[in-house]
Amino acid sequence: MIGEMITKIVEKKNGIGGIQSVAFVACGGSFSTLYPAKYFLDSESKKLRAGHYTANEFVHATPSYIGKNSVVVTISHKGNTPETVEAAKKAQELGAASIALTFEQDSPLSKYGDFVLPYEWGPDADQKNSNVVTVMRIAAEILHQVEGYAHYDEFCQACGKLNAVTGKAKAATAENAKAFARDYKDEKIIYTMGSGTGMSAAYSYAICILMEMQWINSSAIHSGEYFHGPFEITEPDVPFILLKSSGRTRPLDLRALKFLEKYGKKFITLDAQELGLPEIGKNVCEFFDHIFLTVILRQYAEELASIRNHPLSERRYMWKVEY
Amino acid sequence: MIGEMITKIVEKKNGIGGIQSVAFVACGGSFSTLYPAKYFLDSESKKLRAGHYTANEFVHATPSYIGKNSVVVTISHKGNTPETVEAAKKAQELGAASIALTFEQDSPLSKYGDFVLPYEWGPDADQKNSNVVTVMRIAAEILHQVEGYAHYDEFCQACGKLNAVTGKAKAATAENAKAFARDYKDEKIIYTMGSGTGMSAAYSYAICILMEMQWINSSAIHSGEYFHGPFEITEPDVPFILLKSSGRTRPLDLRALKFLEKYGKKFITLDAQELGLPEIGKNVCEFFDHIFLTVILRQYAEELASIRNHPLSERRYMWKVEY
Repeated sequence: MIGEMITKIVEKKNGIGGIQSVAFVACGGSFSTLYPAKYFLDSESKKLRAGHYTANEFVHATPSYIGKNSVVVTISHKGNTPETVEAAKKAQELGAASIALTFEQDSPLSKYGDFVLPYEWGPDADQKNSNVVTVMRIAAEILHQVEGYAHYDEFCQACGKLNAVTGKAKAATAENAKAFARDYKDEKIIYTMGSGTGMSAAYSYAICILMEMQWINSSAIHSGEYFHGPFEITEPDVPFILLKSSGRTRPLDLRALKFLEKYGKKFITLDAQELGLPEIGKNVCEFFDHIFLTVILRQYAEELASIRNHPLSERRYMWKVEY
Repeated sequence: MIGEMITKIVEKKNGIGGIQSVAFVACGGSFSTLYPAKYFLDSESKKLRAGHYTANEFVHATPSYIGKNSVVVTISHKGNTPETVEAAKKAQELGAASIALTFEQDSPLSKYGDFVLPYEWGPDADQKNSNVVTVMRIAAEILHQVEGYAHYDEFCQACGKLNAVTGKAKAATAENAKAFARDYKDEKIIYTMGSGTGMSAAYSYAICILMEMQWINSSAIHSGEYFHGPFEITEPDVPFILLKSSGRTRPLDLRALKFLEKYGKKFITLDAQELGLPEIGKNVCEFFDHIFLTVILRQYAEELASIRNHPLSERRYMWKVEY
């Protein structure tokens, strides 16, 4: 279905200069789900310009390259995030192809999608059809059809293998998740760290799980940036969650780990490589670090919420007050 | 000088397909100084692909578009940041034009620059020749020579006017900086927030000033992302520094301010518009939010360091231990 959709867009755009850019636009957790697709195009595409924007900035300061040669991908779980709806509307007005992803098919966002895609979500979701991977498949399909992608087949096969490896990794880390909850339940701040597409897994865990759903102070630090400022706050009692990539940026994470082992004390690591992600395909697995680690981290969130008697659904402001 | 340098690069590249992409690569504080140039090209260029990478990620997972049609701009204050030196080397190996900025002209980084540029730094620096603005001028010059830039003259004039407005704004906020230091000296965490190029001013204040130089926990939050997770940690005793842009993303900052006024209590704002930045040129001032706010924030850092008896030069790890 995604392949046919992209073929339609490519055919339409080819008459007017082809697809030249792809912008990924959303807010918060949905914003983070788009990062792997942006990272993938940055990494693999020779010609396609790729952008990643929080929706309200895209609306107010729309990049001037957005136009008839662009594809704009938006995502909103309930399809009613006002800034994201506005962004999709703007994309259409500027002549871009608008692809909107939402769990609620009949929603305001759907109105402004030339193509409206569903995704699976929740504990029983097939990760191949999750929001993150659906967007990654859109990116891979665009790349493949516009300029070719050497690892296209491996990428497609990896999507199909993902569910099995995440399932195994979840089971393998279930006890670790409980231990994390016990050991970190009273912390006032927890830093997250990662690189490659693991960076956006670290970001969403920081802003959505810890700050939004647990009211715990947090900040996502890029493993490469850690040594250029942030590492000075490292002390034995400062907690970190370090995500280790299965791909090319893994040396960055290992370097951070080495430092934490020497000067920190309170940290856990989740290692996409050791947990089996490379089984899906060694040339493409790093692009799946985000979804793989996010699925595993979800149980670390659930255990934390449970032991703190602070349900993940609890909010003080979101959806409750005017903002 | 910058104009002539870009002309040389453009002439050389025109025989082989022209300049198609510009990547900005560095670490930490230097990484943040590159963001306004990336933001500028994203905002204003119809054709040029622009990327912004922390150096070690660029080295290990080099984007495949980097090649003979690219310009890679690196920056390292002492010219000896190993990852940045490696990035400039990689850029040259791939056939990109390598522009290296450093305060130490005779440094390892200089070896891998086809062009090595100095910049002014410190309390007496003319902001036109600062690291941030030098890189912005490179970006504007590339845009102007490659595809034209409607506000080129206004941009160039703005650079010349910058020093006067930042000087005035520093004087106007000197007392506020002292008050900030008094009121925030005992805080364990201080969040920073901004949008547009103010986002990278917030980032550098968080990671370089607060975390690195004062060992205070921090995180930079995008004003547009605040409402999609982070705002749930807002309470009367949670401190924020909110940077208000002079440009198109200002509504995002004002929305965050409105929320802080209602549910927060401990926050300060620095307003680039009220402090006079638009005097330099209304079509270009927002690109200078970063440098303008960073210069002003420097005295907030100095006052904080002074009252806490914690010099900005003090480190536990940086340049002192192996990492």
